[in-house]
Amino acid sequence: MITGKNYIGSQLKAAGTKIYKTINPQLNIENPWSFIEATPEEINEAVALANDAFKIYKNYPAQKKADFLNAIAEEILALGDELLEVYCSESGYPKGRAEGERGRTIFQLRTFANMLTEGSWLEATIDTSIPDRLPLPKDDLRKMLVPLGPVVVFGSSNFPFAFSTAGGDTASALAAGCPVIVKSHSMHIGTGEMVASAVIKAAKKNNIPEGVFSNLIGSGVTLGTSLVKHPLVKAVGFTGSINGGRALFDLASQRPEPIPVFAEMGSINPVVILPDALEKNSKKWAAAYAGSITLGTGQFCTNPGLLLGIKGEKLNQFIDQLAEEIEKIAPSCMLHPSIKADFNNGKEKIQSQNGVSTVAEYKGEIAPNYAPQTILTVDGKTFLENPALSHEVFGPFSIIVQCKNNEELLTIINKLDGQLTGTIIAEPMELSNYNAVVDALQNRVGRLIFNGVPTGVEVCASMIHGGPYPASSDSRFTAVGIHAVKRWVRPFSYQNWPDELLPSALQNKNPLNITRTVNDIITNKPI
Amino acid sequence: MITGKNYIGSQLKAAGTKIYKTINPQLNIENPWSFIEATPEEINEAVALANDAFKIYKNYPAQKKADFLNAIAEEILALGDELLEVYCSESGYPKGRAEGERGRTIFQLRTFANMLTEGSWLEATIDTSIPDRLPLPKDDLRKMLVPLGPVVVFGSSNFPFAFSTAGGDTASALAAGCPVIVKSHSMHIGTGEMVASAVIKAAKKNNIPEGVFSNLIGSGVTLGTSLVKHPLVKAVGFTGSINGGRALFDLASQRPEPIPVFAEMGSINPVVILPDALEKNSKKWAAAYAGSITLGTGQFCTNPGLLLGIKGEKLNQFIDQLAEEIEKIAPSCMLHPSIKADFNNGKEKIQSQNGVSTVAEYKGEIAPNYAPQTILTVDGKTFLENPALSHEVFGPFSIIVQCKNNEELLTIINKLDGQLTGTIIAEPMELSNYNAVVDALQNRVGRLIFNGVPTGVEVCASMIHGGPYPASSDSRFTAVGIHAVKRWVRPFSYQNWPDELLPSALQNKNPLNITRTVNDIITNKPI
Repeated sequence: MITGKNYIGSQLKAAGTKIYKTINPQLNIENPWSFIEATPEEINEAVALANDAFKIYKNYPAQKKADFLNAIAEEILALGDELLEVYCSESGYPKGRAEGERGRTIFQLRTFANMLTEGSWLEATIDTSIPDRLPLPKDDLRKMLVPLGPVVVFGSSNFPFAFSTAGGDTASALAAGCPVIVKSHSMHIGTGEMVASAVIKAAKKNNIPEGVFSNLIGSGVTLGTSLVKHPLVKAVGFTGSINGGRALFDLASQRPEPIPVFAEMGSINPVVILPDALEKNSKKWAAAYAGSITLGTGQFCTNPGLLLGIKGEKLNQFIDQLAEEIEKIAPSCMLHPSIKADFNNGKEKIQSQNGVSTVAEYKGEIAPNYAPQTILTVDGKTFLENPALSHEVFGPFSIIVQCKNNEELLTIINKLDGQLTGTIIAEPMELSNYNAVVDALQNRVGRLIFNGVPTGVEVCASMIHGGPYPASSDSRFTAVGIHAVKRWVRPFSYQNWPDELLPSALQNKNPLNITRTVNDIITNKPI
Repeated sequence: MITGKNYIGSQLKAAGTKIYKTINPQLNIENPWSFIEATPEEINEAVALANDAFKIYKNYPAQKKADFLNAIAEEILALGDELLEVYCSESGYPKGRAEGERGRTIFQLRTFANMLTEGSWLEATIDTSIPDRLPLPKDDLRKMLVPLGPVVVFGSSNFPFAFSTAGGDTASALAAGCPVIVKSHSMHIGTGEMVASAVIKAAKKNNIPEGVFSNLIGSGVTLGTSLVKHPLVKAVGFTGSINGGRALFDLASQRPEPIPVFAEMGSINPVVILPDALEKNSKKWAAAYAGSITLGTGQFCTNPGLLLGIKGEKLNQFIDQLAEEIEKIAPSCMLHPSIKADFNNGKEKIQSQNGVSTVAEYKGEIAPNYAPQTILTVDGKTFLENPALSHEVFGPFSIIVQCKNNEELLTIINKLDGQLTGTIIAEPMELSNYNAVVDALQNRVGRLIFNGVPTGVEVCASMIHGGPYPASSDSRFTAVGIHAVKRWVRPFSYQNWPDELLPSALQNKNPLNITRTVNDIITNKPI
């Protein structure tokens, strides 16, 4: 079933000679399939097809795009257990995770399909003419969101389904009306090819123009660089490291025509635990925090890598309880030997810094790509003075900072880089005493959580997955939830355009029956 | 009344020694005032004040910000005729234009104030919890737009009121909750100081924190560069040339923490005139086009610099009629001797290209800074082969391209740079025969106009003033209309946050009575 070839539109092609193999991290051996990297000609062909397809696909009615997205979901499900097995063999995740993530991916596709048929996402806004206005008549103006053009998607390593080939970036771009060229993530190319085959099947069944979707293979930076620099590419979605995301952002910004890059990058997702919560529920929070750190072998974007508390007996007790909870949890497998190596290096670098001590570290025997979850601690002053201590270590790792007082806590928060999330653990009564802390944290994050853990990113309209740099390259957008579509669209106005030639979303009689803003009133009535 | 000093917050300061003077282009002499350029210390002080002010101002209730904006409008009006006189002496525009533009500026400020009290702009979105959902409970999530932080505004030369000190960028940023630091446009620093004094008065009367607004003077690039590179600055608004906008975009993109730049830059605003319109209404359109080219001495962002038609008798007749209309119009004054010099150079460069002929050029005697409106023509093939012919010439200038057929017309449109506007002049019946032309033009512009002229940018929710690069640096935003506020905000989520500690826009009882999306339903009901 896995051919090892690129999808250039619906065609499986492999004119190249460079071979690449993925690794089964559980078994620590190569997987059986050989993948052929895309040639420069194949890359150009995929982009040219996407550009041609855009001219047709951008004008497709909402229902047709919705049918396409729903069909992708069906075709992914139709791949059955074989897809889950390939996913597990390329990620090291257990089957339950594969099923759960497939469910999330299906849900995302269907959510964007529903968004399309519901229609208010278009932000259709109409100001009708006032011919007798003085001193000048007012023209008729009608605005809606229109797609940007071909989008390149760089999938993540840690969500081989939900943030990869047909994940959130692809689903939102296809919903927007943009063709998508996926750079298959090199750690799960087999999974990527299978999911791509589902997209292609869905495209054929729904008469979607050739080139709306391509899936390309490449192990180095050449493929990604060629795509981002290509003049016909109009936007980029990326999920991964700060270095990777920044490199793409720089390339895109330096083009003769700069294009938007939405890169969801690093985050250590600070958690602040306040004194009354330590006093009353220390053990409960220790267990919850231990679970959050180790979820998915700590490989969630929202994994809490930093805990801030006020120095004292209660915090000491919490640290002991956390160590106890952490040691109860069996280590699990990381995504790839290189990710395990990065985890070890990052962890050891921080452990070697002055003033850092290890609170808990799994010491039993573990398989080669398994990660020993690790908790360190340091005092606030040392943390403030050494920027190395706030670097993300991707995996089950967290550092507890013991602040000497509220002022030091506030100073640390104000100096933090931008983050996806910030969490406050507190008794309800004490929270209002920490307005300055909450306010400072709000300014550094995209999502603020009360008495919970940051892992677990609900797919809904109110979710923000993004935040100040470097959590993402543009905090004005989210990568999760229906508003992720806004990354790939621009507002567009028609002035005095004949009603019958307007897109149906803007016509007087409102044939799509969508919610619009007409002369500043929100309504779904016709004009 | 004009002190020549910088407003560092509410303080007039001038520790510097570099003096700058503005020019009266009508009289071609220096204006009487001496302006003192801001020192590096003053620049840093303004940014630090803005950063401190942000912490307070971002949490101000909507009504308080609305009152501030309305008060700015009142204080500008209170400056009376003296403000109009200074405006005219620094711009060369007549008094009628000064009054009209002041009216527009007042209207913009009041429109943003109304937006604040109406409240739906916040995009408040709520998904309530589902504690018994399986396999996992659903958390309560609530999202709204929050301000980015201090914004630097570079005003335009051509709208000393409406796109400068208290113009659209400043008004939208203040509405968003962002402090603003204006780099006063060097051609109208006196006008800028007077308007700044109005903003400062309004701020004092409304108890707005010190530093929410500063107004700095600088003639070279040092001031702008320092501001854009300052780590506490979080976004930039710019209206001006492609070179200027791109330089700021590059600086901002290369920062350790890149920040968004919304630059509204060059546009030649192509107008396509179709055969039946030439047949039936040639004379009418020639008069309208001549009026549009010369409006405000051709110094509108949406000035039509390019007219595309199909070669033939009818187009020849239109060209003759346009020449006749153009020659009827008395030349007017440009903004500055340097703008007049650029106009001459740009015009002469294009006139000197092979295959270009002059259709009309005002030949009478004119005052030093007055611009002789000029119309050139060239065939489609020559235009396609010579990129110099599509460069913007800022001023009353237009080139008519005679395409040999529809195919060549389409090729030219597809090769155009991004534009603010595209216009189609056609008889209603013929438009549907030109779907490919309309579709191609739609893809290159931010606003598509039917049977009108592109000059005249209505301030309303359905207006887009922006477009694909280089019309603007980010086509996903507009510079005109209430949605201009979206440039300065980011979406933000609260998860399981106690109701009484949420911003009022997100509280259950909806105390602001604003329109929100609650569990995917648009409503202003409480929860």
